[in-house]
Amino acid sequence: MTRRPEFQLIAELFAPLTRGAKGAMGLKDDAALVTPSPGHDLVTTTDTLISGVHFRPDDPPDTIAQKALRVNLSDLAAKGAKPIGVLQALTLGSATDEQFLTAYASGLGRDLEQFDVPLLGGDTTSAPPGAPFAVTITAFGEVPAGTALLRSGAKPGDLLCASGTLGDGAIGLQLLNGAPWPVSDEHRAALIGRYRLPEPRLALGRALRGLATACLDISDGLCADVAHICETSQVSAEVHRRLLPVSRAAQRRVADNPSLLFSVLGGGDDYELAFTIPRAARAQLFVLEQETGTPIAVIGHMTEGAGTYRVQVIGDDGREIEVPSPGYVHH
Amino acid sequence: MTRRPEFQLIAELFAPLTRGAKGAMGLKDDAALVTPSPGHDLVTTTDTLISGVHFRPDDPPDTIAQKALRVNLSDLAAKGAKPIGVLQALTLGSATDEQFLTAYASGLGRDLEQFDVPLLGGDTTSAPPGAPFAVTITAFGEVPAGTALLRSGAKPGDLLCASGTLGDGAIGLQLLNGAPWPVSDEHRAALIGRYRLPEPRLALGRALRGLATACLDISDGLCADVAHICETSQVSAEVHRRLLPVSRAAQRRVADNPSLLFSVLGGGDDYELAFTIPRAARAQLFVLEQETGTPIAVIGHMTEGAGTYRVQVIGDDGREIEVPSPGYVHH
Repeated sequence: MTRRPEFQLIAELFAPLTRGAKGAMGLKDDAALVTPSPGHDLVTTTDTLISGVHFRPDDPPDTIAQKALRVNLSDLAAKGAKPIGVLQALTLGSATDEQFLTAYASGLGRDLEQFDVPLLGGDTTSAPPGAPFAVTITAFGEVPAGTALLRSGAKPGDLLCASGTLGDGAIGLQLLNGAPWPVSDEHRAALIGRYRLPEPRLALGRALRGLATACLDISDGLCADVAHICETSQVSAEVHRRLLPVSRAAQRRVADNPSLLFSVLGGGDDYELAFTIPRAARAQLFVLEQETGTPIAVIGHMTEGAGTYRVQVIGDDGREIEVPSPGYVHH
Repeated sequence: MTRRPEFQLIAELFAPLTRGAKGAMGLKDDAALVTPSPGHDLVTTTDTLISGVHFRPDDPPDTIAQKALRVNLSDLAAKGAKPIGVLQALTLGSATDEQFLTAYASGLGRDLEQFDVPLLGGDTTSAPPGAPFAVTITAFGEVPAGTALLRSGAKPGDLLCASGTLGDGAIGLQLLNGAPWPVSDEHRAALIGRYRLPEPRLALGRALRGLATACLDISDGLCADVAHICETSQVSAEVHRRLLPVSRAAQRRVADNPSLLFSVLGGGDDYELAFTIPRAARAQLFVLEQETGTPIAVIGHMTEGAGTYRVQVIGDDGREIEVPSPGYVHH
């Protein structure tokens, strides 16, 4: 492995990504300044992605950077926050080379520009021999004071909604892992693309402020994540299978392999928003879709929890579908 | 390796460390709220510590947590900031067990209490087989708007100062690594203690606001870090060997092994503050020492850089001491 020294990596590859932000101090300081606009709360989140755990070692390095950024932006979206900066703690694996790092930095730069976010600082360390490449992004966002979306406000009767489509990322990963299903090149690319490049629903999250009673992003799988809303809000949820938003590419795979329904319900890697709104606000969903350019589906509603709080999935025959292992475990 | 599931680790070991901070949302959210006091800037910093790189795998787990926290608090101290919260991204190694994690969390809790800082959130992931335990702490602090200490304001003629004593941590690490020097149990414990438990100079950093023209914490080694002040401020530095603050335990080691002087000048792991003040402010150093309970030494002064900016160490004979490899590399 050959690569330039760490200080040079920072100066040459990453300092340009500060995009002129004064608080980054040109990445020449160990700390950064980030100050929310007056009257705003600062929202922060951190996520680590490890090679071989959260992405495949053969994923393109530029999409690894983009995914690391986007999963964090997705957490900000779930709070209704506008991103204002990120820190990046890089752990270089013993096999991390120049080619990887150049492509990685280029992907990161492209996305920071797309989402209009500066790199404010970070840390670069080298892992011991054999240890994988890993990156921890910490993202900052701001919301007008007191308006951050929470997980705790869902009420019985509220509608449960999801953005975009579910299951694509999880099915895409299975394709990358060698699933022997017949699939067109177009569908294959679409599903894998969703695994590698999730779309943080930032515009939708911001539009949901003052409207959604609870919100989060689906990273562990629909059922596991809606269960977090249930626990925190002390309600239950009823999800209807026929209401689940599923892309054409995923629909075809589920038609061929019915057990892939569980990838839609619990596969994770969706980075779509799941949120609840009062039933009376239903008409506003149409406006939300138009204004934010984000497809939204009502997938069920919240119910009284009666002591235990759970997510119930109802099949087309009206009977409950048992969803195995609503996993907390990343794959 | 046996350990409880990740969500249980968070609920049982880490949720109590939020110390009631509302913005932590009981660690039940992927994001946290952290808002500086009105009229303040938010300072943030992130540092990763990897087992076998930044600490020894046989270091006590409680001190590993404490060190991870303290090196970040030290970065806040260098900016004159008051800590207001931290995020913790944990990567559990395949060998990370219950015993380790319980001790780790207990050390972290002890220090969060001592420094009066809440854990606001984080992320917990499992590394692939063979990969080491690692932790990335992101720390937040606040300073009255516009008062953060920088690296860029040192002027020719300014006095160069250091807190505490230098070289203890680097010499302590060499003892842990099996250096065959004769050393009393007391000195051995003192030096190793300084390696494992650095002291973030938070009170001093805050007292330096409005006084220091440049400030940073010494993590890579005195000469390498003062060189950062030189580059950023476009000045040079003259350091006098006889002025270096060295503990009795380190003095004895240097007397026995003169090359250990380079551990004082460039060993790193000091986490003391190096700062510059106008010469006219010299009398205030005494007040600073008294008020913050922190020993301070004037170790030299800043000079005109004349195109190249460098750190010159002057020996007791008036001749320059060549310091090898002012390393950017962590050990």
